[in-house]
Amino acid sequence: MSRGAEDARFLALALLLGRRGQGRCWPNPAVGCVIVKDGRVLGRGWTQPGGRPHAETVALAQAGAAARGATAYVSLEPCAHHGKTPPCAEALIAAGIARLVAPIEDIDANVDGRGFAMLREAGVEVSTGLMAEEALADHAGFFLNRAQGRPFVTLKLALSLDGRIATATGESKWITGPDARREVHALRARHDAVMVGAGTARADDPSLTVRDMGLDYQPVRIVVSRRLDLPLMSQLARTAKGVPVWICHGRDADPALIEAWEGLGARLFACDLAGRQLDISSVLQELGAAGLTRIFCEGGGALAATLLAADLVDELITFSAGLLLGAEARPGIGALGIERLAESPRLQLIESRQVGVDVMSRWRRPEV
Amino acid sequence: MSRGAEDARFLALALLLGRRGQGRCWPNPAVGCVIVKDGRVLGRGWTQPGGRPHAETVALAQAGAAARGATAYVSLEPCAHHGKTPPCAEALIAAGIARLVAPIEDIDANVDGRGFAMLREAGVEVSTGLMAEEALADHAGFFLNRAQGRPFVTLKLALSLDGRIATATGESKWITGPDARREVHALRARHDAVMVGAGTARADDPSLTVRDMGLDYQPVRIVVSRRLDLPLMSQLARTAKGVPVWICHGRDADPALIEAWEGLGARLFACDLAGRQLDISSVLQELGAAGLTRIFCEGGGALAATLLAADLVDELITFSAGLLLGAEARPGIGALGIERLAESPRLQLIESRQVGVDVMSRWRRPEV
Repeated sequence: MSRGAEDARFLALALLLGRRGQGRCWPNPAVGCVIVKDGRVLGRGWTQPGGRPHAETVALAQAGAAARGATAYVSLEPCAHHGKTPPCAEALIAAGIARLVAPIEDIDANVDGRGFAMLREAGVEVSTGLMAEEALADHAGFFLNRAQGRPFVTLKLALSLDGRIATATGESKWITGPDARREVHALRARHDAVMVGAGTARADDPSLTVRDMGLDYQPVRIVVSRRLDLPLMSQLARTAKGVPVWICHGRDADPALIEAWEGLGARLFACDLAGRQLDISSVLQELGAAGLTRIFCEGGGALAATLLAADLVDELITFSAGLLLGAEARPGIGALGIERLAESPRLQLIESRQVGVDVMSRWRRPEV
Repeated sequence: MSRGAEDARFLALALLLGRRGQGRCWPNPAVGCVIVKDGRVLGRGWTQPGGRPHAETVALAQAGAAARGATAYVSLEPCAHHGKTPPCAEALIAAGIARLVAPIEDIDANVDGRGFAMLREAGVEVSTGLMAEEALADHAGFFLNRAQGRPFVTLKLALSLDGRIATATGESKWITGPDARREVHALRARHDAVMVGAGTARADDPSLTVRDMGLDYQPVRIVVSRRLDLPLMSQLARTAKGVPVWICHGRDADPALIEAWEGLGARLFACDLAGRQLDISSVLQELGAAGLTRIFCEGGGALAATLLAADLVDELITFSAGLLLGAEARPGIGALGIERLAESPRLQLIESRQVGVDVMSRWRRPEV
C-alpha cells in the first residue's frame, strides 16, 4: 500500500474510534488514536468517559515498547499543556513515535498549534491537513464551545409527510417506525445531552434516556422551561437522582419550584429572558459553560422554532413517515415570522437514506 | 445466457419500452414489445401516440420475415378483438412467432385471456407470470380505468422540511431546486394529464405544460373548480386552443362562464357535488370516462386533502427542500379531519433518492 493510501486508511480508523467517545467525554473532545508500524496496528485508543485518559495514552499503553519508530494517527492535534496529566505530545515523544498524522489543530487556547510544534521540535515528522473536513465535523461541538461558548445543536424532527408531529389532540406515538426510533436512541447516545421544551415535557412525559443500546452511560436530560412549571411526578422528576436532569429556567421562576427541583436532584440554570421567552442564546451559553459540546434537541415545535429563528441549529435530522395528518395537526416547527422565501433558512443536504419504513435526511447549515 | 436470464432481460426491455408511451397513448395501455431470435433483437416497439399502432405491430414490422420462429416479449397480453385494426394475437401468429413471453393478462373485457388462448390454440408457446408485479404497476392506470372507471392518481408535493408549500403571503417560487423542478416536468410527461385545484390556478397562474424536455406532445391540463370562477386572462385560458384545458365544475356553475370557457377552447365536465364541494369521485369518474388513465395532481393543499380523505391517491411523490417556513406558512395538505394516528393513511415507501439539493420520495397505498 502507498504511504498516502495507508495514511488515509489509518486516519479514517482514528476518526472512527474517536466518534466512540462522542456523548461521554465532554467537556473534552472525542479523539481517536491508532499506532501503526510496518502496516500493523500496535495500539488503538479513544478518549475515555469524562475525558481521561486521552486517546493517545490508551493507544500508547497498548503498543508499549513497540511504539518506538511507529506512526501515530490522531484525529486532533495532541494536547501540549500540563493539566491533570502530562501532555500527550510529550508522551508521544517519550514513546519514540517517529511520525504523527493528524488532520487539524486544536483551537483550544492551551494547545493551538503548540502540540504540533513540540513534536516537530523533538524531531517527529508531522503531517496535517488530511481529512480535515471530517475532523472539523466530528469536533464541531468542541470547537463551537471553545470559540463561541455554546454547544453544537442537532435538531431532530420525526414528521408525517405533511410536517406534523402529533394529531390535533396531541397523539404522537408513534409516527415513525421502530427502526427510526432505534436510530433516534443511537443519535441520543452520540450527544452529551438530550433537550426538549417544557410543552413536550408536559405533554409526552418522556424519560429521554437511551434504551436497548447496551450503554453504561446516559446523556444529560435538559428541559427548557421559563417558569419551571413541570410536573413534579413526571418520569424526569422521579429519575433525576439516577440520570442527570438539567433545567434551564428564567431568573423569575418561583423559588419554591427551584427548591423542589433541586431536592429532586435536578441541576438548575437561571437564564436571561428575551421579551416574555427565555433567551435561547443565554440558555446555550449556560449549557456551554457547564461543559456540553453536543446537544440533541427533540422539540417540540416551539423550541425548534426558537432555535431556528436564532440561527442556532447546526444540524437538522428529519425522519419522514408515510402518514398524512392534515392541517389541523400539530406542526413540527412553530411560527417563524417568515414572510418571504428568501428569509427562510436554507439547509444543505448531507445524507438521505431509508431507515425501515421511513426516510431519514440530515441537513446542515451551509457554512458549518 | 440461460433461457430464464434471457427472458428476464428482454421482458425488462419490453417493459422499459412500454413506459415510453405513458402519458400519450391513453385511453390505450402503454405496451412495449421486443422480437428476439437466437439472442438477437429483431424488432422493438411501443404503443404509439393516441394508442395506434400497437407495440406488437411496430416491432413485427421491424422484424419482417425474420420474425418466423422468434420469441415475442410483450409487457401485456396481446389484444384479441377486431377493433380499428386486426388483433395483435393474430398478427403474431401470422408472423410465425414461436413463443410469447408476457407478464399478465389484460383485464379489458375485449381481451381477458383470449389473446393468450388464441396464441396457444395456434401452437405458440405462451409463458406468463414473469415480472407480473412490475407490469401491474406500469398498467395500474389502465387497469383502474377498466375496473373502477377512474384514472390512477399521482399526488406531487414540493415541500419545505416542515411541510409547507408557500409562505403565508403565497410565495412559492421556488421551494425546490432546478433538478427537482426538471424531475417534475419529466413526471408530468409520463402522465395523461396534470391537475390542480382552482385556488392554485388562481394564485400561481400556472401554464402546467412540460417544458425543456424536447417533447412533441403535452399532457391535458385539468382544473377542478366548482364555480368555474377562474381568471379568463390566465395562462391556461390564453393557451387552451393549443394545449387541451379541461375544467371539472359543478352542475350549478354560471352558464355564462361555461360558454366563455368553451369559447376559449376548454372542454368542460359537469360533476356532482358532495355537500358544498365537488364530489371528487364524480370528478375522477368523468375523467376516466373521457379516457384518462394517469393523472398527476400538483395541489394545492385543499385538493390534495380532498383526494387523500377520499382514499383516491394511488401514489404520493414528495420533494423535500432544505427550507423551514414555520407554522404560519401554507400547509401542503389541508384539513383531513383526523383525530387519531390510526385514522391516518399509512403509505409505503417505494423509493427515496437525492434529486439535486432536494430529497425525492415515492410512496404508495400499500394495497396498490
